[in-house]
Parts: sequence; C-alpha cells; structure tokens
Amino acid sequence: MPRYKITLEYDGTPFCGWQRQKDALSVQEVLEKALFVLEKSPVSTFASGRTDAGVHARGQVVHFDLKKSYDLYKLRESLNALMRPNPISVLQIEEVSDDFHARFDARERTYLYRILNRPAPSVLDALRVWHFPSPLDVEAMQQAANLLIGRHDFSTFRAAGCQAKSPIKTMNSITLQKEGDMINITLKARSFIHHQVRNIVGTLILVGSHKWSVEDFKTAFEAKDRRKGGVTAPACGLFFISVHYPKKD
Amino acid sequence: MPRYKITLEYDGTPFCGWQRQKDALSVQEVLEKALFVLEKSPVSTFASGRTDAGVHARGQVVHFDLKKSYDLYKLRESLNALMRPNPISVLQIEEVSDDFHARFDARERTYLYRILNRPAPSVLDALRVWHFPSPLDVEAMQQAANLLIGRHDFSTFRAAGCQAKSPIKTMNSITLQKEGDMINITLKARSFIHHQVRNIVGTLILVGSHKWSVEDFKTAFEAKDRRKGGVTAPACGLFFISVHYPKKD
Repeated sequence: MPRYKITLEYDGTPFCGWQRQKDALSVQEVLEKALFVLEKSPVSTFASGRTDAGVHARGQVVHFDLKKSYDLYKLRESLNALMRPNPISVLQIEEVSDDFHARFDARERTYLYRILNRPAPSVLDALRVWHFPSPLDVEAMQQAANLLIGRHDFSTFRAAGCQAKSPIKTMNSITLQKEGDMINITLKARSFIHHQVRNIVGTLILVGSHKWSVEDFKTAFEAKDRRKGGVTAPACGLFFISVHYPKKD
Repeated sequence: MPRYKITLEYDGTPFCGWQRQKDALSVQEVLEKALFVLEKSPVSTFASGRTDAGVHARGQVVHFDLKKSYDLYKLRESLNALMRPNPISVLQIEEVSDDFHARFDARERTYLYRILNRPAPSVLDALRVWHFPSPLDVEAMQQAANLLIGRHDFSTFRAAGCQAKSPIKTMNSITLQKEGDMINITLKARSFIHHQVRNIVGTLILVGSHKWSVEDFKTAFEAKDRRKGGVTAPACGLFFISVHYPKKD
C-alpha cells in the first residue's frame, strides 16, 4: 500500500480543530470522508500535530496509505473537489516511503501568530488576526520572548487539559516583526504543548502594553504555574505554517 | 461647518462598489446612512476615487462636512458601530480645512493587485486574490510593465464605459514582487482610468504565461485599442491601498 504525504491549507473558522470529534465537524473528518469516496473503504489519516478549533493552517502535513498508486496531480484535484465547499485545500501531494510518519518524523514546527495593533477593527482580516486596539511595545515583547529560547519547563504556558507527558520543551526561535499595523510573531520548535503559542502570546501582550515589565514576565515563566501567566490569545490569530522533516539520502 | 477626512478599509465583496446605485448596496450608501443617523439630515460624501464591485480598499479617503465639531475618537467609534455588520471600518479621521477635496487634491493613488500563483485553490485568501494556477514568469511581466511607466495613451487598457475625458495618463511606477506563491503588483499614478489596473494585469498575465512576448505586449499597448489587450482581471484581487495629498504649510 503506497503512503502519501500531503500539505494542507485550511481556514479553521468552521471546524472543531484537526481531530475527529463525535458531535462537531473536524478537518480530519472532511479529509477522511473524501478519501473514503476514492477508496470505497475507511482510510486513517495522521497529522503532524493537532490544531484547535478556529486555528488556521497554511502547511499542515498529513500522511495516509491508499490501496493503489494514484497520479499525484489527479489525486490532489480529486481530493480538493470532494472536500468542497469546506475551506480545506490540498496544496501538495507526494508518495513517500512506508516508514514516513507525519508526526513522529517532524524535526521542527513553525507557527505564526498575527496581532492587528490599531484602534479600528479589521474587516479584510477579520477572523485572521487578533485585533488588539491599544498600542504595543514590540521591542519589549521581543525581549521577553527571548527568555523562552532554549530548553525550559513551559508549565506557565500549558493548557489545563494538555496530554503531553512533560512540560519541558525546546524553543528554537521566536521572532516579532512589525509590518504597518500588523505584528507577526513566528515561533519554531520541534514540538509544542497544548495552547503553548496562544498562552505565550497572551502573556507577551502584558509586556507589550506595559502592564508587566520583562522582569515580571521572567518571574511568571519561572513560576512554572499556569495561574501566573496571561490569558489564552484567541484561536483566530494562529496559523500552523510548516513542518520540517529530515532529508532522506 | 467643519470638514472631515476619513480613511476607510472595506471588503468589496458584498458591495456594488463605492458609488451609490439605485438597486444595489454601495459603500457610499452605508457610510451616508450612518452619517444621517448622527446628523439627522443628509450628508454628502466625496471619495478620492470610485472602486468597482468586489474591489477592496485598505486606504480609501473620503471627505464630508458635518454641522458641528465632534470628538474624533468618538466619531470614529460611532461610525464604525453604526455601519456594523457591513464590512467597512473607519481607520482614521481628522478635521481638515474647508478647501480640502479628497478627489481633486489627490497627488498619487496606490493600488495593489494580488495573484496567487499555484496549482491548488486558496481557502484562507479566497475572494482576496486572483487564483492563477499555471506558472507565471514574473521577470517577463516586470519587463512588460516597465513599458507603461511615464505619460502614455492607455486606450488598450481602458474600459468601454470609461467616463474620463482622456485616455492619457502618467504611470509613476509598477512593481512586481513575489513572496512565496503570491505575486504582488503595486501600481502608482496620479489617477487611473476605469479598469486600467485590472486590464493591465489581465494583459501582463499573457506575458507571464509565455503566450505573448514582451514585444507582443508593446505592440498591443501601442495599438491604443482595447480589443488588442488581454482580459479584465477579476475584481477580488484588487486593493485600493492609499492616496497621497500634498502637505499643507
């Protein structure tokens, strides 16, 4: 059975997230239903990581096995046609070796969090940004973010229901860039714990609005206690951008 | 009567364009209805330029006179509340001298046309780009675009119903930038004739997909004949970005 690796874009707004749930529509369910139509039998799909309700993807990676070899161009077109009008698009598709695993082989994941920082609400970027009306000090936020680089206990930024075995993760980089009224925060790590990005952003906001000093942020981080952190930033500002896999020889 | 200058963002999708029409909803109608609620009498608004149905704005400029002086912050908030849920947002508002005119004082207008150039359709940018699936040669498109810089007769790119007195316009700059799968085309001129940007983009596409050489583009441009140009690119890829006014002493 050939194994396929696909790259997905989706608008997270109408979905309960990546993972199948009983009473709500997930990205996984839409994709697996499309695959069922092609294969006439159930197909299990494995994503590089779950995304929460409302979180978008520009480069989610998923693998699955099919009974036969398909023409890759036709397979992509068929899946996109079958998933319509759900806002999911297969961007790329390739056949991979049967030991490839979208989740376990991932070496680095990249997330982008977008904050629209201006008084007026957005209409062109509604549900694609967190609209934060009062001014933010991006430089102070970057200073606070720099404290998170490296291997640390991220309990202060860990959701209550997080299923990861350990709160210890290695953050490779966090970069804040201001483009006009938009603040783009790019985070890279091998893996993330549940709500880690949104809890980090919701806490950086306290520094950016000068409610906290960078020192306050450091104290909260070192407390390893979720109750010391800021709010969870809204899902609609978060984009799962890409996954990096090691090159095969 | 104090005169106000406002900067507007709008999602062009649900509107027949900027200008009031009898049987369709325009941006102007929504704005003037909101102003009527505030003023209890009709208010006329003047935009720096019309936009067509489906064309978006990130920085449309409009002026109007009100009977009294408002607090600018409250006026912006009131207008945004009154226009909801229509996708129009007042970004900035200022009181200007009573000889300011949004249309006649404009020195330069900037438009952006966005092409998503990849095989797979877009879901996150749907209705915000022209999805063009086959590969485009951006360098060749830039070469063709360079022929348009300066003062020329733009009849090849002029809509049939254009009401401008003359097809002669001065193009200040056209810059193509590729960012991932997105091709951003930025055009600057003091003023544009009807459909000029969309007709230029629809003709550049012929060069980008190697159906035309740059020489073919030149020949079509010099023919000064709309029938020699390419298609009119879709409205949804076009954004009215900003207007430049001379600084007052």
